[in-house]
Amino acid sequence: MYDKHQLGQLTHRVKNSALQDMLAEASRPGILSFALGLPAAELFPSAAYAQVIAQVLSDDQRAMQYGPPFQPLKEHISKLMALREVECKPEQIFLTTGAQQGISLLARLLLDSGRQVMAEEMIYTGFQQVIESYQLEVLTVPTNIETGMDVHTVQAILDKGARPAFIYAVTDGHNPLAVSMSQDNRAHLVELAKQYRIPIIEDDPYGFLYYQDKPIPPLRAFDDQWVLYVGSFSKILAPALRVGWVIVPEALITDLSNLKEASDINTSNLNQRAISSYIDAGHLDTHLPMLRSEYRVRRDSMLRALGRHFPRTSRWRAPISGLFIWVELPKEVDTCEVLKVALETERIAFIPGQAFCVKNASQATHCMRLNFSNPSAESIEEGIARLARVLKR
Amino acid sequence: MYDKHQLGQLTHRVKNSALQDMLAEASRPGILSFALGLPAAELFPSAAYAQVIAQVLSDDQRAMQYGPPFQPLKEHISKLMALREVECKPEQIFLTTGAQQGISLLARLLLDSGRQVMAEEMIYTGFQQVIESYQLEVLTVPTNIETGMDVHTVQAILDKGARPAFIYAVTDGHNPLAVSMSQDNRAHLVELAKQYRIPIIEDDPYGFLYYQDKPIPPLRAFDDQWVLYVGSFSKILAPALRVGWVIVPEALITDLSNLKEASDINTSNLNQRAISSYIDAGHLDTHLPMLRSEYRVRRDSMLRALGRHFPRTSRWRAPISGLFIWVELPKEVDTCEVLKVALETERIAFIPGQAFCVKNASQATHCMRLNFSNPSAESIEEGIARLARVLKR
Repeated sequence: MYDKHQLGQLTHRVKNSALQDMLAEASRPGILSFALGLPAAELFPSAAYAQVIAQVLSDDQRAMQYGPPFQPLKEHISKLMALREVECKPEQIFLTTGAQQGISLLARLLLDSGRQVMAEEMIYTGFQQVIESYQLEVLTVPTNIETGMDVHTVQAILDKGARPAFIYAVTDGHNPLAVSMSQDNRAHLVELAKQYRIPIIEDDPYGFLYYQDKPIPPLRAFDDQWVLYVGSFSKILAPALRVGWVIVPEALITDLSNLKEASDINTSNLNQRAISSYIDAGHLDTHLPMLRSEYRVRRDSMLRALGRHFPRTSRWRAPISGLFIWVELPKEVDTCEVLKVALETERIAFIPGQAFCVKNASQATHCMRLNFSNPSAESIEEGIARLARVLKR
Repeated sequence: MYDKHQLGQLTHRVKNSALQDMLAEASRPGILSFALGLPAAELFPSAAYAQVIAQVLSDDQRAMQYGPPFQPLKEHISKLMALREVECKPEQIFLTTGAQQGISLLARLLLDSGRQVMAEEMIYTGFQQVIESYQLEVLTVPTNIETGMDVHTVQAILDKGARPAFIYAVTDGHNPLAVSMSQDNRAHLVELAKQYRIPIIEDDPYGFLYYQDKPIPPLRAFDDQWVLYVGSFSKILAPALRVGWVIVPEALITDLSNLKEASDINTSNLNQRAISSYIDAGHLDTHLPMLRSEYRVRRDSMLRALGRHFPRTSRWRAPISGLFIWVELPKEVDTCEVLKVALETERIAFIPGQAFCVKNASQATHCMRLNFSNPSAESIEEGIARLARVLKR
């Protein structure tokens, strides 16, 4: 009934994300999934959260009302960021319906339709959906698997005169490449942003999930004017709360508020207050180290299993943060085919590398992204062995 | 530091809504507010909700996970709509982060940048923000205070050849004009939509809050192809849950899902499940009649107080649904000035009529929107008397 021309052209540019497709497949009963970037459900603090939300509801019925951003939560976020050497005032913090909304609103804030943006050749599919929905041209840069975004290419493109509306960066626990950017690259990238007056959107859902003692601080710790930081409680507390935040210069808060209001009025007042109470009670202080420790065990289990079962011709690195391991197989292997067989014969899911490539800027047909946070350590060992059987067929 | 030209032009077109400005003012301690469209906080079912959410959290930890739309909630919504003579299948229901997101996503779905839309001269400020953010031209039509949108003008504009991307309509408990569209106008409007193949976005946050026995069904009951319905739990349960829905032809669901995913991934799984459990337990069946009865008392209290205290030269009608009364004062009265004095001398807030006018299409400088759902019946009587004192100064 609706002719194609009646639907906005925008819509047809929105990528039907691999994430969504896999969600259906990977959640079928009996499938062991390394596909999505899901936290471990059994580690969610359901009992503690039930307690704080009951308390919040009984203390003040206005918790169920519309309401402005909850100041105590902003103060908690400010302290949380200080743990990563980021100094920010509550007045620079803007609460969002998860990190995805943070990225989407910041992109919109910085864009005129038709302007260019800069991003890596392989990147989070949710960011690609934002690009598609705003009809943007992407200047792509490669990623070094050991040091992160190729900042020399960034510089070369800027030196030649390109002026993207912003640079998108996942500094820690890169999705999908699992790399954390080197200290030198961080410093260099921020210098370029300042020199060329180009904002960086730093998407940091995984930065609090690090597996070594002294993590390098995020880009926002290097500069408070040109780095627009996006954080979230989804991976460190629970995705269903849909609460994230951005940290920006105070001058941008009003514009963000107006865009946010047009999108969904405000972030759940109830969830804001409950998260704030959860942190008040000291729960996050113990929850975070527990998560890091559990995820490190799962990561190590996957690394061991890969070493034991995967072909010697395949390559991967131990990630120092985040939820993923990126595996490169010999060039002739087509991981889309592997996935098909793995689902059929071994009931194993993962995401083929090609799903993350921006406009075919890169070739990752022989790569796969494996998630280690959602399955248990035991099922990881078992699952990787089964996946290896598919590779050896 | 950010030059104006570096922020997207979009942002500067977003209206800094009267809603947001008033939120700050009206929520100051000691202010008696008729300003915002807030439900009564003391009527929120906090205890029942605490109970269901605790149960959901203890039954299944995946309630805190990312997740696809919760099917049982869609089935509940389908049954809820049947009470208003709307037939829809769960497959036609799409869950959103409140009605505002429903409007925003539908607008985006139906638009190409630069296209025209049709709406009334005075309309919900949140819809005006959506218009501004997408840079749209609005064809405005007047509203008859007794029968709603002037459908003859709609027809005249369409007959002359205009083809807006959609028509925006608040059929029941119009915000701000408090009118519910007549049966004839509903039928005529839907016929025009079918004849000219132009979708109607029917924004219906208030339709379940009616104060007479036999409410007229919404536009969606007249047609299931050209009416795209937007509903919400915000006014009938609680705004802080941020759960709403749209009802559309099934063919549009995939496009909506892609746009939604780019905006905020998914609607809170936890809140979806908790609302579903709340309805399972039969709570909504008793909550809704209680709300209607309580709000009817408040409406009547305001009508009585207006009759007793307001100048004889002022005009209003008894609304048969929704949360507002629209008052017209003599033409020479400037309600912005009245508001200023009312806040200063009587600590009373309301929204001046002019705040709702699309691009000065209409003159409402002598009008005010009064909300009767948020204050108690007693404070309404007292507040209207105080506001009348300002008018008589």
